Amino acid sequence: MKTYLDCIPCFFRQALSASREADADEILQKRVLDEISREIPKISYSLSPAYMSRIVYRAIRKITGVVDPFKKEKVKSNKLALKLYPQLKERIRRAKEPLEEATKLAILGNTIDFGIGDSFNLEKELNSEGNFPIFDYEEFKKFLKKNTKILYIADNCGETVFDRLLIEEMGKGVIYAVRSAPIINDATIEDAKFCGIDKIAKLIPSGSPISGTPLELCSQEFLSFFNQSSFIISKGQGNFETLSEANRPIFFLLKAKCSIVARELNCKIGDMILKYNHR
Amino acid sequence: MKTYLDCIPCFFRQALSASREADADEILQKRVLDEISREIPKISYSLSPAYMSRIVYRAIRKITGVVDPFKKEKVKSNKLALKLYPQLKERIRRAKEPLEEATKLAILGNTIDFGIGDSFNLEKELNSEGNFPIFDYEEFKKFLKKNTKILYIADNCGETVFDRLLIEEMGKGVIYAVRSAPIINDATIEDAKFCGIDKIAKLIPSGSPISGTPLELCSQEFLSFFNQSSFIISKGQGNFETLSEANRPIFFLLKAKCSIVARELNCKIGDMILKYNHR
Repeated sequence: MKTYLDCIPCFFRQALSASREADADEILQKRVLDEISREIPKISYSLSPAYMSRIVYRAIRKITGVVDPFKKEKVKSNKLALKLYPQLKERIRRAKEPLEEATKLAILGNTIDFGIGDSFNLEKELNSEGNFPIFDYEEFKKFLKKNTKILYIADNCGETVFDRLLIEEMGKGVIYAVRSAPIINDATIEDAKFCGIDKIAKLIPSGSPISGTPLELCSQEFLSFFNQSSFIISKGQGNFETLSEANRPIFFLLKAKCSIVARELNCKIGDMILKYNHR
Repeated sequence: MKTYLDCIPCFFRQALSASREADADEILQKRVLDEISREIPKISYSLSPAYMSRIVYRAIRKITGVVDPFKKEKVKSNKLALKLYPQLKERIRRAKEPLEEATKLAILGNTIDFGIGDSFNLEKELNSEGNFPIFDYEEFKKFLKKNTKILYIADNCGETVFDRLLIEEMGKGVIYAVRSAPIINDATIEDAKFCGIDKIAKLIPSGSPISGTPLELCSQEFLSFFNQSSFIISKGQGNFETLSEANRPIFFLLKAKCSIVARELNCKIGDMILKYNHR
């Protein structure tokens, strides 16, 4: 997915929100926005919006010295999700179709996000039915039944606990790939371990330092899993933005959080998506 | 009111929306955003956000050649409001307190706006009660009873018809000031005449070429009315942004359309305001 002009205001909004998370004062916040202003005329719109997270976080690092602005929020969401784990496990156990319930929960878990929008209400989201206008569940079940080599690409902290529930329900060997460096509230190796993923899946860093999975920046190890696995599960917008044109069987599980991604998926903002990529 | 860092994303959003109204293609839209990016590091945050409309529209004019991007929309809102005039007049006539009803309608009319937010639903707004958490109506009635020299500073096209209804109800001589050049969907002399204001008030241009009333850019004629009138009625956010610190008795009538103005007024986005400025 390419970057649209409509993404520009959003980059500034994200930069401001992350600068504030980094405890930057107004003078530093302004310097971050000015730095991004200077980058805007140079950006390539053929790259996905997730690439811009790199420019935004590079500016924040350079100007505030803070490498991981959402550190505190990340720990908080990991803990919150772990606390929910037993009741979600029970909810899946009691469901008519436990795998379907676990799949829906994994998508609902994508609600946890500090990148797009200012806040999220996970508990409210979990108590609602959720709107699933695109839900290629039969296809997903078929792929799962037939195959063993599965690559699962993570998105946010806290959400990893929801991924764990789905992986446990899938009952197959899974490679679980996370970002190689802190960016927004995306999960890294440390977060995935904290959420217990290493006990049920092989955990690897993808090599990606941005909020998505741009193949040209990924590690050789990741790429060999990406190319050789039977199919791929991709969580969240950043991964969708970077992988929507990849020539592999991918199931995209995400909440559509902005008008541009919603338009790309032909759905509404807030919709929950399980989309099989037919390429 | 000064400009906040939170206004920056909004300037880009406004620039994009106005470029599209000007029928600019994607290449020109990008050039407009790039031009604004180059201006961002130079702007003075001590000026009100309304000043930025000047930078935005200057860029649009320079790059697209279009002087009045919202021309069509402006004519449409003037016509829509004129069509509503008879039923609104009747609604005021039937009200228990006609002046109060006319005042509320004048505030509800501020819903018409192409600057902030992407769309508005005037008819829905007119059928709702509206939330008026700040409504200094008793003060307004007192001022109106005691005084004759009133300056009324207009905001948007279409909204001028709602102003006309209030001025008719006030039953006093009024100077009605409009922008001196087209900006966003703000009313100019031509629009005010189209809406019939010239039949009930003395119509003057304020001298302001921006979406507000910055006194240092206003004409001598306007300033003499501003300084000598008994009190001032100021419509909309742009006028509030530029006049909130003016040392004159002003009644601000507006809908709070963004989080920054809502914070400044200690109200919520969407709230309808009649605020007496006690300076």
